[in-house]
Amino acid sequence: MIPGSVVAPQGFQAAGVHCDIKRLGTGKGSNRGPKRDLALILSDRPARVAGLFTTNQICAAPVKVCLERVRGEGLRGIVANSGNANACTGEKGLQDALSMTVLAEKATGCPPGSFLVCSTGRIGVHLPLPNVKKGIQACAKILESHEDSAAHAAEAIMTSDSRSKQIAVEYREGNRTIRIGGIAKGAGMIEPGMSPTGQRPPSRALHATMLSFITTDAAVDPAVLDACLEKAVAASFNRITVDGDMSTNDTVLLLANGAAGAPEIKKGSRAAKERFQIALNHVALELAKMIVLDGEGVSRFITVHVEGARNDAEADLAARAVANSALVKTSWFGGDPNWGRIMDALGYSAAKVVEDKVDISYAEQGSAKHLDALKAGRPTRVKHEALRAISTQPAFDLHIHLNLGRGSAIIYTSDLTEEYVDFNKGE
Amino acid sequence: MIPGSVVAPQGFQAAGVHCDIKRLGTGKGSNRGPKRDLALILSDRPARVAGLFTTNQICAAPVKVCLERVRGEGLRGIVANSGNANACTGEKGLQDALSMTVLAEKATGCPPGSFLVCSTGRIGVHLPLPNVKKGIQACAKILESHEDSAAHAAEAIMTSDSRSKQIAVEYREGNRTIRIGGIAKGAGMIEPGMSPTGQRPPSRALHATMLSFITTDAAVDPAVLDACLEKAVAASFNRITVDGDMSTNDTVLLLANGAAGAPEIKKGSRAAKERFQIALNHVALELAKMIVLDGEGVSRFITVHVEGARNDAEADLAARAVANSALVKTSWFGGDPNWGRIMDALGYSAAKVVEDKVDISYAEQGSAKHLDALKAGRPTRVKHEALRAISTQPAFDLHIHLNLGRGSAIIYTSDLTEEYVDFNKGE
Repeated sequence: MIPGSVVAPQGFQAAGVHCDIKRLGTGKGSNRGPKRDLALILSDRPARVAGLFTTNQICAAPVKVCLERVRGEGLRGIVANSGNANACTGEKGLQDALSMTVLAEKATGCPPGSFLVCSTGRIGVHLPLPNVKKGIQACAKILESHEDSAAHAAEAIMTSDSRSKQIAVEYREGNRTIRIGGIAKGAGMIEPGMSPTGQRPPSRALHATMLSFITTDAAVDPAVLDACLEKAVAASFNRITVDGDMSTNDTVLLLANGAAGAPEIKKGSRAAKERFQIALNHVALELAKMIVLDGEGVSRFITVHVEGARNDAEADLAARAVANSALVKTSWFGGDPNWGRIMDALGYSAAKVVEDKVDISYAEQGSAKHLDALKAGRPTRVKHEALRAISTQPAFDLHIHLNLGRGSAIIYTSDLTEEYVDFNKGE
Repeated sequence: MIPGSVVAPQGFQAAGVHCDIKRLGTGKGSNRGPKRDLALILSDRPARVAGLFTTNQICAAPVKVCLERVRGEGLRGIVANSGNANACTGEKGLQDALSMTVLAEKATGCPPGSFLVCSTGRIGVHLPLPNVKKGIQACAKILESHEDSAAHAAEAIMTSDSRSKQIAVEYREGNRTIRIGGIAKGAGMIEPGMSPTGQRPPSRALHATMLSFITTDAAVDPAVLDACLEKAVAASFNRITVDGDMSTNDTVLLLANGAAGAPEIKKGSRAAKERFQIALNHVALELAKMIVLDGEGVSRFITVHVEGARNDAEADLAARAVANSALVKTSWFGGDPNWGRIMDALGYSAAKVVEDKVDISYAEQGSAKHLDALKAGRPTRVKHEALRAISTQPAFDLHIHLNLGRGSAIIYTSDLTEEYVDFNKGE
């Protein structure tokens, strides 16, 4: 673990400024003052990029631009804003997203088509392009590899997030050091279901605005990079839910620029690939957990483990039914170990469940010591107060065993609080 | 519209008492004092019964008993309790449910096997059978056809309901008067998906504790009775959602005893069948709407109309995605006409949606005057204040046109409030 997030890997610079994208009249492309809302991330050389995008059929203009560009060559950077999602904005929205890339390319002296673009914020409002332009130009002037710059970029993509989300790791590869760093934003509309094409994989649980930008100075073959990111996201961002709402803007981008000087990680380089995957998985999972912990109004973090389903897909459906049940989530808010509501949610999930076979137990976060609440569908003699001692903690684990097969799934989720409702009621 | 709900039809009696099923030590089968929790409904002659039951795989013991008996002959009545769901209670739970029927049959002098049984309340707790026995015996002594008795039965099945739900209608059939009356309970765990067998129909949106008992003095052929109830429920109880949680106990029972003396309604009696269907639909829909209006913490009633889907099933999926979105529901609480969140929910629904084709409009409840918010995926020039004048009303209609086909669906739903969270957080 090292500081610097997206600028920890060699060859990357970042910046974040406030340019008043919400048009509150609170600044003009300044590096001080109100919350930053415009970020640039730049690689000093062409990077290979892997991306995963929302499978929502209503997808924002910047997502459409990224889908077009992500598989191309010579990519150099990301321009991103908060305060406006540039979604449901039609042809003008698409032009605005393209203009953002052009402005970023010009301001950084990069070739046309070398920037990716992301937005997050309110749906259905056109971007204030003059403000965006000032922001991009201000950002380009202060791009740095300093950890403060990465922190500014992380702040600039926040919307209802209460704190920025950053991480970086390094590991040795031969006589070189490879670094992977990332930033993310979350808070509401959090149940990502991302795919590389924005198309839904068949038979996949569907249901975050979340953005995450990950950089690395490893050199990675494009197909390997795609596969590594898919694996990492499948075990992290695609395993979280706060409110069950999948956003129109969800995007994860991984930029690999090879600046560490280590040999390229190819399909055949099994050991090097595995080390890279482990490090990437760690970065993605930590960022994903930060998103849940900082979800709107969240007071408790629950890890739902489902085992013994007929298959992994059904385990996933069962875990999501529990994690998205309004009644289960409100009982978690109250610290109530209400396994009856959990059974109810399992029963209406699309997974096969047999009442007499279900085991439910509670454990402290990460603990192997399980306290059984239900065995073979019947309440155990465990004391309610013992269960409550666990379920009132800020984080705990729920273990569900369906005893029907070998399918398993993990979902990271939160409670549903009055603060969430108050925050989202608007106006 | 007439008074008396379940005792309005000829030949029916009802009663409701308090027998302290929650064991709070507050009474012993009395007709006064704390909220009633045990109800009897009795027909003075054998009735034909149609029933629809939760498709939750974890189904309560009384549901299992009803599934066995409902297609039988010589049925005479219903015994029902609140305060305990008798769900996840194993073999003893099943014996307890059967004991309830035996106690009711003995107390009313009816033959063995002639009673149906329903429970609602907390999951995973065994019934206090001595209390239940006192309640049934007290009820049997005071069975009457007085409208107060029906009101007592309606109260006895309430859990978190703030008020009882009753309705009765009558219409002329030749020189006879046919009456249909019903009671219902709802409040939380409300998104019924009921079928006659408790088995899931293929490709059906799945997702209330709700109970409804409907009586009629019409004489109806058993197959016609089944078909009429299925139609009525498909357009009422199966079209509501409060929190998207389908209960383990959902049950609708329709008892037809023929006491009006009108000719039996058979497959061939088209006009008589249609009149009966219309009256039954009205009773079921009014009770269903009462359940939404009285849902836990509900402050607003929204009717979601989806038209232009590729087919009715997709229209249903689209409407349910909108009606169950935590973000959409909280914006309704705030009176915020936030169509961006509606578009987001449509986009992640399993229904086909094309951004550029979606129209969204708001209307006062039941009004044909629609105010367009979105046309062909783009915001209209409508004033935000004009939309807000509708979306801040206690009830309004949302009209969504997908413009892809001829599929349509209606869902009756509510907002999500801080009061809901506070009520359900437990302990």
